[in-house]
Amino acid sequence: MRETELIRAIDTLARTTMHSPQVLTGIGDDCAVVRPRPGEDLVFTTDLTIEDRHFTRATHTAADVGYKGLARSLSDLAAVGAEPLFCLVSLAIPAGSAQWVKAFYRGLTSLAKQFDMALAGGDLARADKVTVDVMCCGRVHRNKALLRSGARPGDSLYVTGELGGSALGFEQKRGKTWARHKRPVPRVAAGRELVGLASACIDISDGLSLDLHRLCEMSGVGAAVTSIPVWPGASIEQALHGGEDYELLFTAPHRRIVPSRIASVPVTRIGEVTAHTGTITYGGNSLEPSGFDHFR
Amino acid sequence: MRETELIRAIDTLARTTMHSPQVLTGIGDDCAVVRPRPGEDLVFTTDLTIEDRHFTRATHTAADVGYKGLARSLSDLAAVGAEPLFCLVSLAIPAGSAQWVKAFYRGLTSLAKQFDMALAGGDLARADKVTVDVMCCGRVHRNKALLRSGARPGDSLYVTGELGGSALGFEQKRGKTWARHKRPVPRVAAGRELVGLASACIDISDGLSLDLHRLCEMSGVGAAVTSIPVWPGASIEQALHGGEDYELLFTAPHRRIVPSRIASVPVTRIGEVTAHTGTITYGGNSLEPSGFDHFR
Repeated sequence: MRETELIRAIDTLARTTMHSPQVLTGIGDDCAVVRPRPGEDLVFTTDLTIEDRHFTRATHTAADVGYKGLARSLSDLAAVGAEPLFCLVSLAIPAGSAQWVKAFYRGLTSLAKQFDMALAGGDLARADKVTVDVMCCGRVHRNKALLRSGARPGDSLYVTGELGGSALGFEQKRGKTWARHKRPVPRVAAGRELVGLASACIDISDGLSLDLHRLCEMSGVGAAVTSIPVWPGASIEQALHGGEDYELLFTAPHRRIVPSRIASVPVTRIGEVTAHTGTITYGGNSLEPSGFDHFR
Repeated sequence: MRETELIRAIDTLARTTMHSPQVLTGIGDDCAVVRPRPGEDLVFTTDLTIEDRHFTRATHTAADVGYKGLARSLSDLAAVGAEPLFCLVSLAIPAGSAQWVKAFYRGLTSLAKQFDMALAGGDLARADKVTVDVMCCGRVHRNKALLRSGARPGDSLYVTGELGGSALGFEQKRGKTWARHKRPVPRVAAGRELVGLASACIDISDGLSLDLHRLCEMSGVGAAVTSIPVWPGASIEQALHGGEDYELLFTAPHRRIVPSRIASVPVTRIGEVTAHTGTITYGGNSLEPSGFDHFR
């Protein structure tokens, strides 16, 4: 199969996602052309998903990989409270993978359609291992993007959903927890509702302990965690340090009323922000950033 | 070296590029935040650059790879006539490459600074082979992006610069032609001057024969090539089919006066657009798309 034929097949799938009047051109030209609307900022993120690092071809179907590649990037849009607009998808694959590629794009576009976002372009190349890079663009009202840097001492600390399910699922490789690992649901609707409510936000991709350190570092604060919502059956270690839950960790001024559910997702107060810059505790003891670090 | 330390080193380099008032945040948050200006469209492209496919670590320094990764993507912005605004860089690398990573970003940011564009974010991960994906965003006046689809029968066909130099350089691996291969100059200034002059444009990344077929396919036309400007010492085969010259191939209505130099780059009329959809000839003989195809 030639590259042009493969691109034609991808283009057919991509066309099923092109509903936004802001995305003017799709696959097939040198660039995707997008028309911003007055009063909006655009936000951009990109995430790598790599064979034998983030998935294996033995445990993940091509559609799973397409889904996950986009979900990881969408979770970053959720963290800033953005509405998804479009994505660009770069895919490097071994020879002879034409069927795999088509299934990959079916998985990816099925998720894109759930969020009314366009697959507007990308790149294809050969590599020994499957390598995926998904760039997502979203829109927010001007100056309203949620940042990691807005937490202030005295703010309350919250998470959406339950933690540790993805790590447990990766261990068990069956049932609902395995689905939780393979097909995480990016908290896009919850993130959008947090705009104007949260003072800071980050998505939990590398484990609560590490991502909480990141949020505190960017805000110049510390945090005292008292209790956390644990996925049924997961250990407290999995909940604290297991990656890939893709829930949102956010802060809000302590007098702000935060609903117990946001966009149908349970929200739990897990502690508070302190003035002890860089000091994170859990139950009074130091909580080290032991989440997933690609370079340790 | 931990991921956070590596990101801090990259952040220091990235800050030297953050001059655009449109790019509101840099590295370190979940997303980069960008403020569009009224009356502009934004254009987006992404390009993979992969070890042992697009370069080898034996022949290319880390700085070369950083330069080339960005140059490939900038060439797509040139093809639509856009002004570069920012890039996101995804980089997957083997263990123990901290010094390599820093040199990579030095090479990349040196080119970014030439075009006043920001390094606004990206992703880092581990992989067995170096894998780079550079997403570039540029700005164009509304509705002014040059597309592949605007060529009409009777238009004249032009290229910037000379062709085949990159293929020759790859063969010789020395002197000026090797530099031509390793450090191609994206024709950004020429592309911007083509807005309002060219009817269609594409950058020659995979060889004239293949990229001309692509332009003709998107425009629903054919082309008759009469003669082409060949890099000194390169063969006609290298000029017709060698990839990675990163010159611009464009069309303009035949009565339009096209200067012999645009933004200091020589421009040569190489033939004309015909109504014979899909038929491309060179000197009267069929010219097959024999450029670089990742999936042949």
